[in-house]
Amino acid sequence: MTYRAPIADLLATMSQTRAANNLPAETEEAEPVLEQAAALAQEVLAPLDRVGDRHGVSLGPEGVRTAPGWREAYETWTAGGWNGLTAPEESGGSGLSQSLGAACFEIWSGANLAFALAGLLTSGAIEAVHRHASDDLKARFLPKLVSGTWPGTMNLTEPQAGSDLGALRCRAERAPDGSYRIFGQKIYITYGDHDMTENILHLVLARLPDAPAGTRGISLFLVPKVLVDHEGRLGGHNDLRCVGLESKLGMHAAPTCTMSFGDAGGAVGFLIGEEHRGLACMFTMMNNARLAVGLEGVAAAENATQKALAFARERRQGRGRPAGPEMIPIIRHPDVARMLMTMKAYTAAARCLCHLTAAALDAAREGSDTAARREAAERAAFLTPVAKAFSTDIANEVASLGVQVHGGMGYIEDTGAAQILRDIRIAAIYEGTNGIQAIDFATRKLPLAGGTVLAREIADMRRTVDKLQAMAQPGFGHTALRLSEAVTALENASAAMQSRLGDDEVEALAAAAPYLRLFAIARGGTALADLALARPEEAERVAIARFFAESLAPAATGLERIVLDAGAALADDPEAWLRALD
Amino acid sequence: MTYRAPIADLLATMSQTRAANNLPAETEEAEPVLEQAAALAQEVLAPLDRVGDRHGVSLGPEGVRTAPGWREAYETWTAGGWNGLTAPEESGGSGLSQSLGAACFEIWSGANLAFALAGLLTSGAIEAVHRHASDDLKARFLPKLVSGTWPGTMNLTEPQAGSDLGALRCRAERAPDGSYRIFGQKIYITYGDHDMTENILHLVLARLPDAPAGTRGISLFLVPKVLVDHEGRLGGHNDLRCVGLESKLGMHAAPTCTMSFGDAGGAVGFLIGEEHRGLACMFTMMNNARLAVGLEGVAAAENATQKALAFARERRQGRGRPAGPEMIPIIRHPDVARMLMTMKAYTAAARCLCHLTAAALDAAREGSDTAARREAAERAAFLTPVAKAFSTDIANEVASLGVQVHGGMGYIEDTGAAQILRDIRIAAIYEGTNGIQAIDFATRKLPLAGGTVLAREIADMRRTVDKLQAMAQPGFGHTALRLSEAVTALENASAAMQSRLGDDEVEALAAAAPYLRLFAIARGGTALADLALARPEEAERVAIARFFAESLAPAATGLERIVLDAGAALADDPEAWLRALD
Repeated sequence: MTYRAPIADLLATMSQTRAANNLPAETEEAEPVLEQAAALAQEVLAPLDRVGDRHGVSLGPEGVRTAPGWREAYETWTAGGWNGLTAPEESGGSGLSQSLGAACFEIWSGANLAFALAGLLTSGAIEAVHRHASDDLKARFLPKLVSGTWPGTMNLTEPQAGSDLGALRCRAERAPDGSYRIFGQKIYITYGDHDMTENILHLVLARLPDAPAGTRGISLFLVPKVLVDHEGRLGGHNDLRCVGLESKLGMHAAPTCTMSFGDAGGAVGFLIGEEHRGLACMFTMMNNARLAVGLEGVAAAENATQKALAFARERRQGRGRPAGPEMIPIIRHPDVARMLMTMKAYTAAARCLCHLTAAALDAAREGSDTAARREAAERAAFLTPVAKAFSTDIANEVASLGVQVHGGMGYIEDTGAAQILRDIRIAAIYEGTNGIQAIDFATRKLPLAGGTVLAREIADMRRTVDKLQAMAQPGFGHTALRLSEAVTALENASAAMQSRLGDDEVEALAAAAPYLRLFAIARGGTALADLALARPEEAERVAIARFFAESLAPAATGLERIVLDAGAALADDPEAWLRALD
Repeated sequence: MTYRAPIADLLATMSQTRAANNLPAETEEAEPVLEQAAALAQEVLAPLDRVGDRHGVSLGPEGVRTAPGWREAYETWTAGGWNGLTAPEESGGSGLSQSLGAACFEIWSGANLAFALAGLLTSGAIEAVHRHASDDLKARFLPKLVSGTWPGTMNLTEPQAGSDLGALRCRAERAPDGSYRIFGQKIYITYGDHDMTENILHLVLARLPDAPAGTRGISLFLVPKVLVDHEGRLGGHNDLRCVGLESKLGMHAAPTCTMSFGDAGGAVGFLIGEEHRGLACMFTMMNNARLAVGLEGVAAAENATQKALAFARERRQGRGRPAGPEMIPIIRHPDVARMLMTMKAYTAAARCLCHLTAAALDAAREGSDTAARREAAERAAFLTPVAKAFSTDIANEVASLGVQVHGGMGYIEDTGAAQILRDIRIAAIYEGTNGIQAIDFATRKLPLAGGTVLAREIADMRRTVDKLQAMAQPGFGHTALRLSEAVTALENASAAMQSRLGDDEVEALAAAAPYLRLFAIARGGTALADLALARPEEAERVAIARFFAESLAPAATGLERIVLDAGAALADDPEAWLRALD
């Protein structure tokens, strides 16, 4: 089974989530774009997915070598203009909507997660350079970033500084010509070196000698692999190199590099934004990247679901109950169908959450008036951690179900089911662990605009429940009841969370992850119901919304209780907890 | 961090679960055995765990080669008499209890899953030969199996026959001397060939020419790798060989073989039990193996928890809230503590379920009277699928949390966290997928003895809840309330399941997996509370029981709803479901 881009699902989700953000559908422009993206993904990227996994990458004296076919695929992909899809037209991009960009990114990632990751990082770099760099830097570097000719990387992590960027030690010194010299080591640098392009533009966080301690003393620099003169011609190699490759659980085709800067006198770097204000620029990259990582989750879940479905339609075991004369495809066994529907429904819900976020980003730019644009921007900020964490959490679960549906064959690497499990496992960790997303959501997004952003979401969910109740269509089963219970659970848990902020921080932090999950279930479940209500003629959308409501959303009632109790024991007696962990 | 055998937890769990099966504690005999097992596991087996993963196995003209050190470790292990720990004394075993055997098997598996797997298969073979083979076969083969000098394998699966053994095609022919000739191919044969021992005893399912179709026409044969004369001397190589090795997600050190029998005229085999009655013999092996696979889950979860705890105590990131002057160990971050407590509590609950099962097996033999022994045997049969499925499901979740606690480092293979995730992923699949366990539980175990086995379990849980309520100790927080809700949820769901059996099979099958999970949560949660109540001086057991009740058991309220609704949509309109899966 090779990956097929889920174009119909993408178009339906886009049109629904854009409407939910008061934006017109863009189906007519979108469809041909998605079809071209699908063709490239299916024909060029998907066949390289196993090749990359098996072949991996290697580090030699010339730097990092990628797997056979990788360089050519990257050239084909950039030649098609896909790298700059959502980048501004004035810098050579296509200026398309975030919705459409999200749909295309899902398609690349579904076909080949490790390949699409290169583009994810460049997108972040485009955003940071476009928003924060000087005109001179933009002129020299932005068009190359946008075309993908010189892709970008994000150099944040150091051994002592992972989630805690305040602990960074890489240093920068001012040079007389206005540029800087960068020194130090960075770890876990994705696509930190490779042979797919003539140059690579590293975005590096470092400290100036007079920088304040902590996160307020970090500056952001653009550090090219190969130096570029003012006419844009490539010169000598900059003073940086990959000194090691990690051996990872998955994403074997995407090099994870230890990068060394300044071993021979200092790597030439250029300041992006202001000195000591690098973290704000970095967050521009990271917010963009968080939604993209959520989309990686959707893509992997979609791919796992497609593989499991294809297998379950072909594989025959058992004769059913009552027993028939022939072995039946395992998709006809209710427990297997349950697993497949779980995969389908989680994937569809996560896609809705990511596209609600993408459409909110579009509405923040295109909205009818200032208030609408402000509300949309708030909504995008509010939903981003949910889109990232929920989509990648369910991707792990869906990928594991995919292995399970394959039975013993799922454990064999040939099937590809295990590769998805391995590849996607990083997504819940990078670009801010899902724990950090949950804390961001519970402590910064929940109180956003005095809690009105949350209140608007809940009101929106209630409207969907009311509509379902008024309609009372038998095909929806207990959808209205179960979603209503989920929204009520969310309301109760939200009230508890709001009352804790400030005073009962330990409880709020301990409850953050189950609270995010509860929100995502209520929001995802109602979004799927909206999708089904908008297209009553598509019975399968009703079946998926119903399955989510009846078989996944009931977790909400438990999550409410978990949120209410969470952290009480820890706050009562933190030492007893730690003893229990001895 | 290297694995440490959790001796105190094992002894506490054993004493509690034996008491729950009306058996005396055996702490005094057990403790020195566990300490010796721990020493061997920690010193010999654990250091080979990474070696085996990296080195894997290879197939050459001489057969399968295991990783360096593997053969020596196996010799050390068998020389210590560990292979025959629970085997009957009359065949050279130590005749120890199933409880103690389970504790030791957890220790081997915690140190090195791939290594312990060899012993698991031999145990099953011992059981089958001991119970079903002729005296002549027993005399020739049983002592060698018991000592582990000639380990056993289980040859069930064929390409078209995985979960559905009725579809087997391997054939057997009667030979004039009373033996048989075996022909055909088997796949996924764990330790099907290796260089650790001079001989291997294959237990092979095959069909005689006049066998009825389906599962009632399968016979079980003992097929040695090297032929053995009547004096027990090794002769020529039998007509069987490993023709391929699988490349797997994990368990790299344990060869998974494609075995070919009879390419040169027929492999010599000996019938075990009666012709056409092989499946009953095979189930003897499988039931034994199912509990052992549950213990693999406990062991992997324990190992993952230990690794994550050690990392979280060392790794410093962030300064806490309110921010202190120094970076704090991540174990002090409430969300990380939540993940670690989840790992701890799931592991402890799964260990209770496995040991309740093991102690029930002991009580079925040692019980005071016939009725007690019958009830204990019923209890063991009832709990076996729960012990297998719940322990291996939570093992996947706990192993994934272990990766998450490590952050980016968890994705790097050096840490070992990823290896546990890869290695244990098979346990939810082999020895009957967890879906099959759930169906066994819901359709055969739930109605066992007219539902009285279930009723006894529920009454037992209620007694625990009553005790907690009567005590009203503040340290238990909402433990009584949440466990009471869980038991009520189980009662309601059980009533629904019972009413479906026979009539609403589709609903019962679709609800089987969430129903098993619900039972396991109620049973595991009350067992942890029992453990805490029995040892009020050990505050950490209260903390773990409370965390399970407050933060994991609330899932029960959702699972009740899921069970109630499950399958209705599928039963209403199976075609709509399948369309949704298109």
